[in-house]
Amino acid sequence: MAQKPGIPKGTRDFNPEQVAKRNYIFNTIRNSFERFGFQPIETPSFENSETLMGKYGEEGDRLIFKILNSGDYLSKVDDDLYNLKNSSKTTSKISEKALRYDLTVPFARYVVQHQNEIEFPFKRYQIQPVWRADRPQKGRFREFYQCDADVVGSNSLWQDVEFVQLYDDVFTNLGLEDVTIKINNRKILSGIAEVIGAKDKLIDFTVALDKLDKIGEEKVKEEMLNKGIPQSGIEKLQPLFSLSGSFETQMERLKSILSTSEEGLKGIEELEFIDKAITNLELKTATLKLDVTLARGLNYYTGAIFEVSAPPNVNMGSIGGGGRYDDLTGVFGLKNVSGVGISFGLDRIYLVMEALDLFPETVSNNVDVLFINFGKDEALYCLKAIKLLRDKGINAELYPDAAKTKKQMNYANKRQISNVVLVGDQELQSKTYSLKNMTSGEQQMVSLEELVNLLQ
Amino acid sequence: MAQKPGIPKGTRDFNPEQVAKRNYIFNTIRNSFERFGFQPIETPSFENSETLMGKYGEEGDRLIFKILNSGDYLSKVDDDLYNLKNSSKTTSKISEKALRYDLTVPFARYVVQHQNEIEFPFKRYQIQPVWRADRPQKGRFREFYQCDADVVGSNSLWQDVEFVQLYDDVFTNLGLEDVTIKINNRKILSGIAEVIGAKDKLIDFTVALDKLDKIGEEKVKEEMLNKGIPQSGIEKLQPLFSLSGSFETQMERLKSILSTSEEGLKGIEELEFIDKAITNLELKTATLKLDVTLARGLNYYTGAIFEVSAPPNVNMGSIGGGGRYDDLTGVFGLKNVSGVGISFGLDRIYLVMEALDLFPETVSNNVDVLFINFGKDEALYCLKAIKLLRDKGINAELYPDAAKTKKQMNYANKRQISNVVLVGDQELQSKTYSLKNMTSGEQQMVSLEELVNLLQ
Repeated sequence: MAQKPGIPKGTRDFNPEQVAKRNYIFNTIRNSFERFGFQPIETPSFENSETLMGKYGEEGDRLIFKILNSGDYLSKVDDDLYNLKNSSKTTSKISEKALRYDLTVPFARYVVQHQNEIEFPFKRYQIQPVWRADRPQKGRFREFYQCDADVVGSNSLWQDVEFVQLYDDVFTNLGLEDVTIKINNRKILSGIAEVIGAKDKLIDFTVALDKLDKIGEEKVKEEMLNKGIPQSGIEKLQPLFSLSGSFETQMERLKSILSTSEEGLKGIEELEFIDKAITNLELKTATLKLDVTLARGLNYYTGAIFEVSAPPNVNMGSIGGGGRYDDLTGVFGLKNVSGVGISFGLDRIYLVMEALDLFPETVSNNVDVLFINFGKDEALYCLKAIKLLRDKGINAELYPDAAKTKKQMNYANKRQISNVVLVGDQELQSKTYSLKNMTSGEQQMVSLEELVNLLQ
Repeated sequence: MAQKPGIPKGTRDFNPEQVAKRNYIFNTIRNSFERFGFQPIETPSFENSETLMGKYGEEGDRLIFKILNSGDYLSKVDDDLYNLKNSSKTTSKISEKALRYDLTVPFARYVVQHQNEIEFPFKRYQIQPVWRADRPQKGRFREFYQCDADVVGSNSLWQDVEFVQLYDDVFTNLGLEDVTIKINNRKILSGIAEVIGAKDKLIDFTVALDKLDKIGEEKVKEEMLNKGIPQSGIEKLQPLFSLSGSFETQMERLKSILSTSEEGLKGIEELEFIDKAITNLELKTATLKLDVTLARGLNYYTGAIFEVSAPPNVNMGSIGGGGRYDDLTGVFGLKNVSGVGISFGLDRIYLVMEALDLFPETVSNNVDVLFINFGKDEALYCLKAIKLLRDKGINAELYPDAAKTKKQMNYANKRQISNVVLVGDQELQSKTYSLKNMTSGEQQMVSLEELVNLLQ
């Protein structure tokens, strides 16, 4: 019996229209990356397991797809271990490779492995798929693309400024105006934790604060209290919950809250630098906004933290994020390489662009003209014209069989091909082509030269 | 201790120059595919194991990378099986997914799964990586890209004609002239086997004949004899070994050899159709050549068989291949879908282009201009110009730190950036930019407008 075809859950087929739209987003991002001086690299889809394992926490380790060793893999499991029938202990014996989980760890591995060939600061971008054995749900897939740009080997805040500009550039070019680039700084979060006497509870504190949008002020305070943050500290937080006004006004309020924290004030200084530069350089369509609740991968970031929200008229979480990290490559033996980077969330950007109808009509790069096939002599005559049209950059095809005209015209309609050429006896003899516009229904008999001009 | 970074054998990192060159080839191929009316699809990197297993023979099954199930995968192995400690029997219990081994089987699965959304004939192209647990060797990798174009749902020989044109178009556009497109037909091979009394030994016969180039006439005959093909039959083959002259001349010789085989004559008729059309339409730089020893994946092909050889001045096997098949999708339950398709071998094309120095110098899309960083005010001033340059499509970057000028100039040199802009007090005050050409050493002080014009 034939197999019923299907694909693994959490994965997707992409049809021609979807591929074209995805490539439109990729190309727009790639174009901005390159104008900003970033260079592409690519790394293998699978890495040695030890490169990936232990880099994403326990949860991450579980979500990494492992590849079974080839050959008689069980022979490498000694009998004592085998008799335990313990999956987690057995994995490393029967699997030595694993699928890329993100682009950051492979990038760190790349930088260390190729450090002698690289000119630092190294501005790299990478657009490749990653795989996670996550529970699939709406908008969350087991295979999805990441689009990352990072600079490593420089502490300069100008990089942070440029990443804000880069977000603005990409989203403006995609026609996705009015996105909000939220910015925060790890040092501000540390400073606040210090000021409220919760320095040792930085993670608990930021995890709770991060939920402000979702669960509201009261619940956030409740959670902090439960986590052992003193009531007196939480009271000191009060001004944070009502931060408003311009970037500058908010920074002033923060400064007074953080007046006793050296680290916190350093964070403010960094943010002020970025804000002033951006005010001076001007964004095209995006807005830069301070968000002190923004924490993202806090364990990881050491300076600026970025997150981009879709325009207010679309209900969609973040469509990008990033930040500055101090020690990207230490785990692979190269110390003191700091970096800063941002990422674009392709799938969500795609959904936002669909919702706002932002894909250009020409995106699909569809066939421009179909030549109807009336038989051998006609087809050969048509292929001569088709060859010329293709050389002029026009997408052209011949219907392969001399099927009924109605069938061929139906094919043109269903594939939304806007022009059809018909060649019968009359055209053959007069060396002409009947060009039919499928939208207007208009039909005209033209020379080869005219045909090229009309279609170009 | 820090991990020593490395990647799995048979896989590769690609640096910016390599990515740019590979993309140049991909884009050239993609461009031709689209002008010829092919549409892109993409399928997931991994498929359900049952989709792939059993489709590539025993050897293929072994070479497919299997993905270990998540969670407590051993609990799904019943104790009787577990006690056997038998790898090959255990695999299907602990692994349900496998990495794509080629693009053809996933395409067949796609066609069946989406048959109601597809307009036939369906002209699809697909450019994605595949994975094989092959022994890595020079030019053979465990992760590599395939670039396939196929038409399914039509028996028309015009498709075969167009694939010859497509090969010619792509290689001409890559600057790779004088490739040889070798063509054969499965029906001719069947016909010959019939005529020499080896109809039941078609595979043995073609496997031996396929080696003619490598091992020579005598060894081929020896192998055939060993496989049980009668001496009398082998003698009838003699004219095959000395086929020469034009396509037409060779076809005439073949016709007389195959005069008693209906199938063989049908194969000749098909080849003649293709040859006549191509003669009429003319190839740009490639040559179409009959090669009756060409067999490729014979189990698979039912009509035309294609293979492309690199230009004679490079020693490199085939750089592309393909053919016609009768039943692509039967195994997934959709009968009578025939197709024809070709593939481009990216890695070999890359090597040939390197060997012949065919990559354009502009391929790397490098940074056009580096702005030297002399401090905060200068940097901000520079970023205003950089913003404008980027908007004009120029790749521009600011050195992130106000490091020593020499260090910054060194960076420009090593990254082969051809223009550098220096902005000091004088430029700040006169609102100008000193533009230095890194090749000629020439330096001039220009306005912003002039800067844009000079760099554009």
